[in-house]
Amino acid sequence: MIVTVTPNPALDLTWHVDRIVQGETHRADAGIARAGGKGLNVARVAHAQGASVLALATSGGATGVEFAAELASSPVPHELVPVQGATRRSVALVDEHLGDTTIVNERGINPTTQEWEALKAAVVRALDAPATKATKPVLVLSGSLPPGAPDDLLPTLIRIGRDAGAIVIADTSGPALLAAADAGATVLKPNAAELAEATGIADPIAGACELLHRGASLVLLSRGADGMLAVTADEVVRARLPHPLAGNPTGAGDAAVAACAVLMAQGEKDPTVLLRRATAWSAAAVLMPLAGEIHPSWPDLESALLIDSPSLMALSRPSTERTPR
Amino acid sequence: MIVTVTPNPALDLTWHVDRIVQGETHRADAGIARAGGKGLNVARVAHAQGASVLALATSGGATGVEFAAELASSPVPHELVPVQGATRRSVALVDEHLGDTTIVNERGINPTTQEWEALKAAVVRALDAPATKATKPVLVLSGSLPPGAPDDLLPTLIRIGRDAGAIVIADTSGPALLAAADAGATVLKPNAAELAEATGIADPIAGACELLHRGASLVLLSRGADGMLAVTADEVVRARLPHPLAGNPTGAGDAAVAACAVLMAQGEKDPTVLLRRATAWSAAAVLMPLAGEIHPSWPDLESALLIDSPSLMALSRPSTERTPR
Repeated sequence: MIVTVTPNPALDLTWHVDRIVQGETHRADAGIARAGGKGLNVARVAHAQGASVLALATSGGATGVEFAAELASSPVPHELVPVQGATRRSVALVDEHLGDTTIVNERGINPTTQEWEALKAAVVRALDAPATKATKPVLVLSGSLPPGAPDDLLPTLIRIGRDAGAIVIADTSGPALLAAADAGATVLKPNAAELAEATGIADPIAGACELLHRGASLVLLSRGADGMLAVTADEVVRARLPHPLAGNPTGAGDAAVAACAVLMAQGEKDPTVLLRRATAWSAAAVLMPLAGEIHPSWPDLESALLIDSPSLMALSRPSTERTPR
Repeated sequence: MIVTVTPNPALDLTWHVDRIVQGETHRADAGIARAGGKGLNVARVAHAQGASVLALATSGGATGVEFAAELASSPVPHELVPVQGATRRSVALVDEHLGDTTIVNERGINPTTQEWEALKAAVVRALDAPATKATKPVLVLSGSLPPGAPDDLLPTLIRIGRDAGAIVIADTSGPALLAAADAGATVLKPNAAELAEATGIADPIAGACELLHRGASLVLLSRGADGMLAVTADEVVRARLPHPLAGNPTGAGDAAVAACAVLMAQGEKDPTVLLRRATAWSAAAVLMPLAGEIHPSWPDLESALLIDSPSLMALSRPSTERTPR
């Protein structure tokens, strides 16, 4: 069973506009409203691929009502912790002419201490449920935290997961990424920029090793069109497609997390197997218009992957090499 | 009593972003949600200036719930006709750096025949109420219609107003502007571009005369920084500020309509008096950040207005002079 936690969910609103001219007024058809947030994308992908899933999130205010209604109309099992602050909105304006998307993400409202406690209690309950224990329990913690969220929130959730015997996968950035490593998250999935920003180390393999030294077991590093790296204490494996794919990269990282969660819930531990599936689902997400979906051709993508172990020379670089902050 | 009708209301969402870069992802504080639509702006301004007002609109779906809640938290008396289709959204992204605003307006969902009948019945009831009849009743019909709205909707509403003995002010554009003139709306308030587009006549005074010939009594023509014109069968009067104002033009036309409605409900008929107040409130709206509000300094703006009668030479131009369509 996979339990996903989305501590800062959003009502994702998307409008398609013929051609966006800044400062002008445009007409558009009705926008699409969807319950969004990285943990929900992970849950959507994992559920669609047949995994047993529970998505946990907060919801509040008028936007929370719409968020909850949209989620209720989806097939994804979920539990929403009610909060006073309104669920944030995320706005995407798709320029149909240029094919690009301009996004405005609200930062989100920090729940109260009591509300965070209620979310933690929901995680404890979910991990303790008999259905969760039927397979290897996996706890996925994904996405941003609202400004003002307690520093110990993510470490506490990771400890709750570890105490329940769960594999913990965290997809976060900034200081929270280091805190997640320190707290012993099993898998971390930064992208190259997030890893460099959090660790201050320019070299991606050296940065991944920093997270391993702090307490993580596996770092899955997403590198956009260059595929992904899996880094453990024992090995570095690289997976990439022979040709880059054009499409919508939003949600590609969430699909990678979903792949890892689904396989680990089945008992899979081999980093290369996890990396291959994560890279394939990530690529298959690029082919879909909406985050939280992957293209059914993913087995073909997985078969086509180029797998190798890049030179470990990078590891021998002095660990004091840091990027300017 | 002023009854405003907003046949295509919107939940107006506004986000302030430091600097918008197309195709990029931005962070922003929570957006502002407000019940919007031109008739509601008119009602807000008229009510704030002490007039007796009832705002009529439709509301539906999750956005309609939020729309209704926001309106309920405002002091403006209103009645909402429930509809199945979700109230549309309007999105404004304010670039704090450049100071411009990019707007995406959803077109809106056409109510059913039964729902339109319910709106018409609400207008009949409102105009028939004893409170409405205490002063001269004024019916204000403002803003766009959703795609697919019946062609006879606006003429029917105008006829309902006339049958109830009300002054009817219509702020619309396109073929609906001509239909409103044909149906005998008392006052029409196009801007210069809308007038030229609807009548096919480039000269604004000749275009206004076309609307008078069709059945209107007064045309208030808004000309942006060039102020306003009042055109009746007997005279043409121009009002403008000695210096242009910088600010937010959204809602300036609605403030002009509100001024006209408030004075006419008090029995005022002099086009110059109506024009002066309309121009002053319109300018005072430019000084406010939100549509539906006017700056309290409007009496000073009204005192400063330059009033004249422009040459009527324009009227002697052949009426066959038409702009290319």
